[in-house]
Amino acid sequence: MQGGGSRGGNGASRARRQFLGQGAALVSGALAGSLAGGGARAEGTAAGNGPPAVPDWMKSPGADVGSEVYGTPSRFERNVVRNVPKNLKQYTSASSRTPLQDLDGIITPNGLFYERHHGGIPEIDPAQHRLMIHGLVETPLILTMEEIRRFPSESRIHFIECSGNPGFEAINGRTASDLVGLVSCAEWTGVRLRTVLQEAGLRPEARWVVAEGADAAALTRSIPIEKCLDDAMLVYSQNGERLRPQQGYPLRVLLPGFEGNMSVKWLRRLNVTDEPAYSREETAKYTDSMPDGTARQFTFTMEAKSVITRPSGTQRIARGFNEISGIAWSGRGRIRQVEVSVDDGGTWTAAQLQDPVLTRALTRFRLPWTWDGRPTMILSRATDETGYVQPSLADLTAVRGLKSFYHNNAIIPWRIAASGEVTNGFVKA
Amino acid sequence: MQGGGSRGGNGASRARRQFLGQGAALVSGALAGSLAGGGARAEGTAAGNGPPAVPDWMKSPGADVGSEVYGTPSRFERNVVRNVPKNLKQYTSASSRTPLQDLDGIITPNGLFYERHHGGIPEIDPAQHRLMIHGLVETPLILTMEEIRRFPSESRIHFIECSGNPGFEAINGRTASDLVGLVSCAEWTGVRLRTVLQEAGLRPEARWVVAEGADAAALTRSIPIEKCLDDAMLVYSQNGERLRPQQGYPLRVLLPGFEGNMSVKWLRRLNVTDEPAYSREETAKYTDSMPDGTARQFTFTMEAKSVITRPSGTQRIARGFNEISGIAWSGRGRIRQVEVSVDDGGTWTAAQLQDPVLTRALTRFRLPWTWDGRPTMILSRATDETGYVQPSLADLTAVRGLKSFYHNNAIIPWRIAASGEVTNGFVKA
Repeated sequence: MQGGGSRGGNGASRARRQFLGQGAALVSGALAGSLAGGGARAEGTAAGNGPPAVPDWMKSPGADVGSEVYGTPSRFERNVVRNVPKNLKQYTSASSRTPLQDLDGIITPNGLFYERHHGGIPEIDPAQHRLMIHGLVETPLILTMEEIRRFPSESRIHFIECSGNPGFEAINGRTASDLVGLVSCAEWTGVRLRTVLQEAGLRPEARWVVAEGADAAALTRSIPIEKCLDDAMLVYSQNGERLRPQQGYPLRVLLPGFEGNMSVKWLRRLNVTDEPAYSREETAKYTDSMPDGTARQFTFTMEAKSVITRPSGTQRIARGFNEISGIAWSGRGRIRQVEVSVDDGGTWTAAQLQDPVLTRALTRFRLPWTWDGRPTMILSRATDETGYVQPSLADLTAVRGLKSFYHNNAIIPWRIAASGEVTNGFVKA
Repeated sequence: MQGGGSRGGNGASRARRQFLGQGAALVSGALAGSLAGGGARAEGTAAGNGPPAVPDWMKSPGADVGSEVYGTPSRFERNVVRNVPKNLKQYTSASSRTPLQDLDGIITPNGLFYERHHGGIPEIDPAQHRLMIHGLVETPLILTMEEIRRFPSESRIHFIECSGNPGFEAINGRTASDLVGLVSCAEWTGVRLRTVLQEAGLRPEARWVVAEGADAAALTRSIPIEKCLDDAMLVYSQNGERLRPQQGYPLRVLLPGFEGNMSVKWLRRLNVTDEPAYSREETAKYTDSMPDGTARQFTFTMEAKSVITRPSGTQRIARGFNEISGIAWSGRGRIRQVEVSVDDGGTWTAAQLQDPVLTRALTRFRLPWTWDGRPTMILSRATDETGYVQPSLADLTAVRGLKSFYHNNAIIPWRIAASGEVTNGFVKA
């Protein structure tokens, strides 16, 4: 392309499209109203008098190239960190949350990916690590990481979500992270689990694969053979680089759309069996108590969910134009639609979905909104490609009761006060 | 979904598909040959004797949840860092490269995104930062970061590449990073430049927008108005979190597909004009000297390019199955095809492209390959959606001559020795 200037004819720039005209006008209003904040119409300043004073950081050379061989965020972002619960009795089996309210797009940076560990984070030497595949196979295998990396690879963008995100009792959080920060999304690279299992050769009676982690909890989960032969992966890279220790370095199972603890981290063993292991994490934990006293077991799939991340709890908005933005996801496939209500569920408007909309990945949604300054409640409601619609908390508890802890995918309300302050709509004002 | 085990019938697991049969067989060969490395068929071990000895890291609890509120890579990955040139006279105007040979997928983690600075890296306080829009506009504006974040936002995955990647003299590097490590790819979030320009209101004679950075070099580039009104963005987030200081924190222009230096970092000023600024970076630098002594100016678009990252220089492969994997990209749009040759260009085979294939983004390609142990040269050749085909170095220099430095998108050859050692095919053996 040569300098396009010579082509001229930029009529498009003069003709304002209606939505921009409105949006811009409203943003102008915001500008006019924010003089105190430093924002200003620049008549008399810009018209010949030049830009604002040259800032100090232009007056001397900055930091050297390579001063960080592995980069870190600006010190002005030091508060954008994992959300770690205060005053726990122990932090060996606990979780930290992704600061969803501070993030944009769908990719979670590796440094802010949520954590859930059952025996702390092991520090594993990949040269010493082994994966053993045994049980109902033709040829048991013990694989090194080097050998695992020789298999054909794939890369896919998927979310991972803890099944207790949030628990039914834990919906009094202040921020989006407090409520649903146990979900993150990354580009994963590894080998199809199917490929590795077929290398060993499955016997006809194979029905389950029991995965064991190399952590102090030896976390163990049973995976139905159908999932193992479908989209399950053994992953070693996340957002380009190798897995972080908190995400299972050097090897992790990835079960797209299933509850996070089944994507076993620090994977050391796959035992092919004809029945589940009935391990602690699928009996005492990670089952759903129903009103009649029974418990649902093996409720693997994370149902459709969404949350508005901006504006969200502890943020404050100004009158006029405010883009409503959030994330939606479903363990059943692609998000088909996200509806937003700015009148506490009275009316719903379809939000724009950011391309690409990928299966079992976070999907960013956005809706332009003009806030008139009146108190209200804003909500989002996701529908996935199966037609499943995210329920209200009332609809969910009507079926599931109040004894349940996991798989709470209820619609999340944010209250907007006259001051513009945003708070958790689950909590009485 | 309930436990799928009861459904039974996993015939698919027994029937090996041909390509897996081959792949697996070959990987088995690799296993048999790597006993010294610890890899082993597990007969007699697995058949009842249980897994390898329990590693030390399972015998005591690991690190606490939240021990890193902002996570970092495993210490075993300490060598996966930016590739910084040795013994430069100064590091204020220099570059560091992404370690492409160590990465998978298409997302570059923020900590490893390549750097190119002309006046070092300024440390900017976002609360003090301003963007001024003036010149041929109806209403000059000075915007705070808070105000910029109120505009309607978008998120898109795009690569950024330095136009000297590599220079024509710099093709003697040892690794993929040495050769073409001045390209990286991320998910960017920000506002369309068009939206902000239309907020100020462009005058009819507007033809160029001159962007200025708030670094010590006040890096300045002229952008044709057509690009400004097309897919250009003002971005503040990268892979979910705010831009890193090395990538322009708190605000950067993003011109998808254009040479990297035009995506002005630390953006402080947009001066709308009727002609280019003819700044240092578009006169003394970033022009292309032709054989006849003339220079091409404003050669904005980065043409289609590809590189095999695995196997690549300094790596070593074993006989048998080796997946060939690499990245391809084009400033003109989507990658349509990547062909790989394993016989020094004698024959070419279409590689698999990993979905999603996105416009002006890295595209991961892969080809299964069985190496017979004979020395050879492996190459990759990208074709983009316009039909443009990545040229050989000979074809490129036949047109461009040898005086040129920028926009070298020649096919990159890797030499495979009988030992399995991989070296730069541009360098005589």
